Amino acid sequence: MDDAAGPQARSVFGVDPLDEFALLVSDCVWDHCRNLGNIEIEAKIGVLIDRGTQSRLRLPVFTETIVDAKQLNLRFESNMSMAQHRHYNQLLNQAVAFSAQAAPPERITYRHQKEIDSFYDERDPETGHMVHLRVTRDAVTHEIKPGGIVAKKRIADINVFAPNRPFDYRISINTEAPVPAPQEGTEPSFVREKDRLSYTHQNMNIDLTQVILPNKPKEPVHELEVEIRNSADLMQHAYLSRGNSQPGTQEWSPFEDTILVLLNNVRLLIR
Amino acid sequence: MDDAAGPQARSVFGVDPLDEFALLVSDCVWDHCRNLGNIEIEAKIGVLIDRGTQSRLRLPVFTETIVDAKQLNLRFESNMSMAQHRHYNQLLNQAVAFSAQAAPPERITYRHQKEIDSFYDERDPETGHMVHLRVTRDAVTHEIKPGGIVAKKRIADINVFAPNRPFDYRISINTEAPVPAPQEGTEPSFVREKDRLSYTHQNMNIDLTQVILPNKPKEPVHELEVEIRNSADLMQHAYLSRGNSQPGTQEWSPFEDTILVLLNNVRLLIR
Repeated sequence: MDDAAGPQARSVFGVDPLDEFALLVSDCVWDHCRNLGNIEIEAKIGVLIDRGTQSRLRLPVFTETIVDAKQLNLRFESNMSMAQHRHYNQLLNQAVAFSAQAAPPERITYRHQKEIDSFYDERDPETGHMVHLRVTRDAVTHEIKPGGIVAKKRIADINVFAPNRPFDYRISINTEAPVPAPQEGTEPSFVREKDRLSYTHQNMNIDLTQVILPNKPKEPVHELEVEIRNSADLMQHAYLSRGNSQPGTQEWSPFEDTILVLLNNVRLLIR
Repeated sequence: MDDAAGPQARSVFGVDPLDEFALLVSDCVWDHCRNLGNIEIEAKIGVLIDRGTQSRLRLPVFTETIVDAKQLNLRFESNMSMAQHRHYNQLLNQAVAFSAQAAPPERITYRHQKEIDSFYDERDPETGHMVHLRVTRDAVTHEIKPGGIVAKKRIADINVFAPNRPFDYRISINTEAPVPAPQEGTEPSFVREKDRLSYTHQNMNIDLTQVILPNKPKEPVHELEVEIRNSADLMQHAYLSRGNSQPGTQEWSPFEDTILVLLNNVRLLIR
């Protein structure tokens, strides 16, 4: 207990190693997004399901790790029980109440929104590719929300197995490009109602959503997502730190740190 | 890039989550060692070998994780090439040279030692159990080293798979209890020569060892280990922080932090 010797050095090299996990997620975001706009980066909380057994993944590991979902034949189920949804609602409301005494940049705000999403699969007249359109309307006025018509495209997924937690999580990179409205008279392929509590804290949104599908009106799905609000800002940090650097000269910048804060939020939520 | 808003909060709850990995290793050390003396905690660098394929473990994960060596049918091979040994020797010598300008508590010192270990398997006359004795002698004078006769007992292993690194590692908990010399005339079951460079930094030893076995004099084994020098001091920190606390009220103390520094050293060495 020789505390007189001063603080413990972080290692024989004087530093902590960079966080391998956060760096790998950051590398994936950088590799996929450096040439894209309208990026959405979010982490969904749920369970990794083995398609073979149709139950949660089992793997002989004892700590959180990013898994190869293709090789393991996994799908991700973003759902939780009503009781878990209620628990998260209380937990986040407490965080809002607690933060009310903090300085404005630390405060958490929240909004309650009811929306209806209509999905359309249309063929792009120029490329011939199928495009997945989402039109979001206010559930009360039925007016289309500002920026509410987007073409959503899946870019990449990172699947995280968390053996000591009730939930796993998936980090998804998508683009949500604003597009013109679908042609009048087109029938949506799919409609859903969303009842969402959106908690906003700095550059993070935590969305606690109840989703009702028309064919299962009595079985709402409960979703919890953490999303980076301003991904353009995130990528600006990435361009600054990584745009001109040589491979292998990696440093910790606000880019990696924002990715770590995303992970921090998820990890604290699934404890 | 709204840096005027002040530093980024660590999460919506205002804190970083505790490091799950370091905490799990700390829990394992605490659970096994709280009632033991003469503890040795060390991390060996090497490769996890699948006994089925006799080659390095393959697992569909992308980040470092603690694995179930029993379920995966693994053994750990603590060896490296001569070139890797030389690389580590240079790297650690550079760290010594660099630290020479630092304040004394931050300096790294090193010793070169040549020793001969003789192992004896004896039956304890009281318990009837077999005991594994090690007698360590100076290789030049052949005198037994101070504290050089110990009964070594394996307590627990933690096996870490590091898919992005050239090496995996194993954290071993052993007891090394001082014992009387084996009976005169007893033949050792096993003898080895050790040529060891021991780098000492605060509460850590990094040992770079060339081991020569009598049946393979031309094929030395090269080992790299990071060891906590004063485990009594470590456990004293653990008793202070965990001795009276309720389960679930876990906090980060110098105990967990010393375990993290052990991990930091290994992770920086295997980069």
